[in-house]
Amino acid sequence: MLHAVLARAIRHGRLTVQYPDGRIRHYGDGTGPEAGFRILTRRAAWRLVTNPGLSFGESYMDGAIEPLDGRLLDLLNLLMANMAEPTGHPVEALRALWRQARRRLDQLNPAPRARRNVAHHYDLNGRLYALFLDRDRQYSCAYFPTGQESLEEAQAAKKRHIAAKLRLAPGQEVLDIGCGWGGMALTLARDHGVRVTGITLSEEQLREARRRAAEAGLADRCRFELLDYRAWRRPVDRIVSVGMFEHVGIVNYPAFFRTLARALKPDGVALVHAIGRRDGPGSTNPWLTRYIFPGGYSPALSEVLPAVERSGLWATDVEILRLHYALTLQEWRRRFAANRDAIQSLYDERFCRMFEFYLAASEASFRQGGLINWQLQVSRRIDAVPLTRDYMLEAERALAAAPAG
Amino acid sequence: MLHAVLARAIRHGRLTVQYPDGRIRHYGDGTGPEAGFRILTRRAAWRLVTNPGLSFGESYMDGAIEPLDGRLLDLLNLLMANMAEPTGHPVEALRALWRQARRRLDQLNPAPRARRNVAHHYDLNGRLYALFLDRDRQYSCAYFPTGQESLEEAQAAKKRHIAAKLRLAPGQEVLDIGCGWGGMALTLARDHGVRVTGITLSEEQLREARRRAAEAGLADRCRFELLDYRAWRRPVDRIVSVGMFEHVGIVNYPAFFRTLARALKPDGVALVHAIGRRDGPGSTNPWLTRYIFPGGYSPALSEVLPAVERSGLWATDVEILRLHYALTLQEWRRRFAANRDAIQSLYDERFCRMFEFYLAASEASFRQGGLINWQLQVSRRIDAVPLTRDYMLEAERALAAAPAG
Repeated sequence: MLHAVLARAIRHGRLTVQYPDGRIRHYGDGTGPEAGFRILTRRAAWRLVTNPGLSFGESYMDGAIEPLDGRLLDLLNLLMANMAEPTGHPVEALRALWRQARRRLDQLNPAPRARRNVAHHYDLNGRLYALFLDRDRQYSCAYFPTGQESLEEAQAAKKRHIAAKLRLAPGQEVLDIGCGWGGMALTLARDHGVRVTGITLSEEQLREARRRAAEAGLADRCRFELLDYRAWRRPVDRIVSVGMFEHVGIVNYPAFFRTLARALKPDGVALVHAIGRRDGPGSTNPWLTRYIFPGGYSPALSEVLPAVERSGLWATDVEILRLHYALTLQEWRRRFAANRDAIQSLYDERFCRMFEFYLAASEASFRQGGLINWQLQVSRRIDAVPLTRDYMLEAERALAAAPAG
Repeated sequence: MLHAVLARAIRHGRLTVQYPDGRIRHYGDGTGPEAGFRILTRRAAWRLVTNPGLSFGESYMDGAIEPLDGRLLDLLNLLMANMAEPTGHPVEALRALWRQARRRLDQLNPAPRARRNVAHHYDLNGRLYALFLDRDRQYSCAYFPTGQESLEEAQAAKKRHIAAKLRLAPGQEVLDIGCGWGGMALTLARDHGVRVTGITLSEEQLREARRRAAEAGLADRCRFELLDYRAWRRPVDRIVSVGMFEHVGIVNYPAFFRTLARALKPDGVALVHAIGRRDGPGSTNPWLTRYIFPGGYSPALSEVLPAVERSGLWATDVEILRLHYALTLQEWRRRFAANRDAIQSLYDERFCRMFEFYLAASEASFRQGGLINWQLQVSRRIDAVPLTRDYMLEAERALAAAPAG
């Protein structure tokens, strides 16, 4: 059965599969990239036919699938490059319908569930994130002006890139929705003299963000709260939200942008940075939903813009970052591998394999699977930002040239 | 009747109306902008109630409505600023439904009708356009880096802005869909050493574009054809389309972007520049449809992006130009007024009033009515354009610094 499915699905490259009975088969046209895997149990082979989206990751976690030569990323790149083209099998259309129906339910995310969803991933032991993220713990797409930057440089460049779009001035009030461990808020407060409130649903992140603010002597200008964005009431000059929109859920997009429209002062500006998909509405991979991001979804821009248009906000700029997240994930994977022993002692082998699969599958998705990272700038007034975008690059370069701190 | 409608609709500013019986009434809260009009016939007053979208322009053309002090733009700005907020009247919801149903039909634009629609406006006497456009006859939104440029400078800046996004190299094949009188094609051929084919459905534009190519000695590198975009077959490196998408019609957006995807070589890049609306799907004003642009529609980005996503193309950048078109129209109106006698002798008084209404209503729409001009860059490959947008501003400034020609 699996043989028939693969023979149909794999058209490009060369995929080698070693079956539980020892037989080795090859798929694809034999040109281009090569990769392969061993399936160790008949059950894993069967589940790959009936539920590939969930079971490939699970079987990898359980050790029932082993990439040849340990090259997990190459394997996922090859599989995704082939899956990007529909095979035209009727089962695909049925699956798509089913996913469309389910995803609205999966993404309802009322406040209590939103908090549980966030805790699932972001309340993991804080030491874990220190072992694969950059020093500032930016857990979102970095920005690589040349592609040659270190992760630390690229995350600093990302913060400058966003700050430049926000047109900050000393004394402004800034709201950071989904503030993570506080890196963005602290940077804005330190380098731009603004007052920032960061909100998060993760108690672990809240604790760490507050600790860092105190340590940096910024606690007076940088506050952190455990708060759902829907509960925010105070008008602010600027709003920034980086890597949080993925957790909002499609049914809540109107509420999200209404919150921005209500919270911004009349000359306010907001910048939302999130993962998206290039090829229209889709659904979150079921393995990712179960193990990493319950309630999460990365939308096509065509799914985001209707909510912006109805909110009364102006969409003043849309940047589409391609490949930047692949470069970010490449470095996270490298650091994760370098610290694998330490991470294994924090958790266990199955957790390590789960996380490795998550990082490799994400990187492959940004190279082969049509994932992007978009930055959407919105304002309440037609003239809240200048006539042209030139100020963005000019401000960013001035920031890069200035000494930090 | 009209009194009741205006009393309900006009909330801001101060609108003065002089009725056919000589009575003068005021509307609005009396703060902010002031403007007004006289209605000279009872019929015009009645039609303003039953069909304001069509009849306001018609009554102006016929002289049955006269703006006070001749200030047509101020009047339209005031009316549009008030209409931007829905009054909640149930008739509005019914009208919206009816318009949604009609607009798909209005915008079918099969090839023969597309040609008639284009002839309606663009086959007007060529001298007309020379009397209000810039010297290069750019009949689309200019680009004002500072807002202080002359129209000639701003149209040259627009062409540089677009050329920078196209990443041109000498010898490339470029397709210009909706080439107008050839200004963009000739500029690209002359300043970038590319070979351009411009296609239009207007015989008047075709003749003039060919004449200009011959005159400039560029006829070998710059060809023009009378062709519908759907009929284009030859692969090209670059596609540019400026101010044509407004005539495509919403039902044809998938065909338009499929045409781009099919016509572009694998490393190709295209740039589409068109008018849009910020506040979601709408409908074209019936006066504009009847008198100026039959079959025309300026879409919300949420209406454009689904077709891009399904086409297999990457949306690699979306720029949203606000107010640039208001500045452009302001200058077109000024030149039109300065040449009114010459234009009246080409046509007649009613034509002049029609055109004045069109220019003023358009300018008011870009200031008060939520119209924008978007530039969408698309490519076939994820890496067809650089990692960051920095190249755009750098190339544009290099072009501005270089001597033309």
